[in-house]
Amino acid sequence: MITSGPTRQYIDPVRYMTNGSSGRMGASLATAAIAAGHDVTIISGPVQVDYPSQARVIPVITTEEMLAACEQEFPRCDGLIGVAAPCDYRPERVEGHKIAKTGQPITLHLIETPDVVATMGAKKKPEQWVVGFALETEDARFRALVKLEKKNCDLIVLNGPEAMNAMENQVEILDRGGEAVAILSGPKEEVAAGIMQAIQIKLMK
Amino acid sequence: MITSGPTRQYIDPVRYMTNGSSGRMGASLATAAIAAGHDVTIISGPVQVDYPSQARVIPVITTEEMLAACEQEFPRCDGLIGVAAPCDYRPERVEGHKIAKTGQPITLHLIETPDVVATMGAKKKPEQWVVGFALETEDARFRALVKLEKKNCDLIVLNGPEAMNAMENQVEILDRGGEAVAILSGPKEEVAAGIMQAIQIKLMK
Repeated sequence: MITSGPTRQYIDPVRYMTNGSSGRMGASLATAAIAAGHDVTIISGPVQVDYPSQARVIPVITTEEMLAACEQEFPRCDGLIGVAAPCDYRPERVEGHKIAKTGQPITLHLIETPDVVATMGAKKKPEQWVVGFALETEDARFRALVKLEKKNCDLIVLNGPEAMNAMENQVEILDRGGEAVAILSGPKEEVAAGIMQAIQIKLMK
Repeated sequence: MITSGPTRQYIDPVRYMTNGSSGRMGASLATAAIAAGHDVTIISGPVQVDYPSQARVIPVITTEEMLAACEQEFPRCDGLIGVAAPCDYRPERVEGHKIAKTGQPITLHLIETPDVVATMGAKKKPEQWVVGFALETEDARFRALVKLEKKNCDLIVLNGPEAMNAMENQVEILDRGGEAVAILSGPKEEVAAGIMQAIQIKLMK
């Protein structure tokens, strides 16, 4: 199972919060997983990317929908590659009507959305594995390892914000001992093949 | 000159606010304007749509960039069709680093971005015209007319939120006297041709 793309959290019927995730890494990972002989289910936020036709794609909009789809699908999967960038804050209150401009500032109270990878990490059975992704702008390796631990991942893939909506990527794959099991860079297709290879070697016996 | 698509206002290097505007009405209006013999400049936020190859496209990300491009281009144009949906709020402060989740709510103070159509409306020369768009979820006609007045538009095109990122559209074109000069519905291409026709009849002598 692969989560892919961004999610959206609406502020009112028109405005929402999101991020620039394109779904390209998700599509590349799906292609690499299919090439390695796996059945692939993709839980995807709104993207323009073309997923491989052999993958089953479940489209979602919000983080809550992504989590619900994951909870439904994960029990029958070997593992989760959580490359999506779910929107991790939502307004405490969503306005039913479009907020009208008044010239005055407005205050938005944001609360965290559920953490999809952490929820799956907490629920995984001993034979299942979870690979998380961390996009950090500072103290990158340290923060990635904290996330690996907190989300109960088996591996975490660390990349920078320049990866978002780009064609190329540069990543480090860290294991639970904090070791870099691979450092990969290049087109997303090649990086995805490298990540899939690391998953096969480290997590699939 | 046509403004088209959404804009983005970043909260931090990863997260931003935006809306679902696809640029399809902008592309359809550009096609209709070119068919009517006009030179077209499109100031466009991030979209996936294909604009007609005869149009000059100036890509922008934020509302401030859209306004700057409009201020540059408008003096040499006959008029503005402001079909873009610029993000109209931005965080008072943009974080330089990705906001780390702490489990606690966060408060976002939002201020209004500059109004692109209103700024152009205030600057237009007597021979120039401005056509605004209003997307309203309630008191639609009344609010559209208030916008027409406030933004110094010559015509305003009223549509509902169901128009966003859709293939079809249903609009009313209102003039400064509050009269509906046209009510159009159907595929965006046809609605765009009808809007262009109304502009030709009402505003271009």
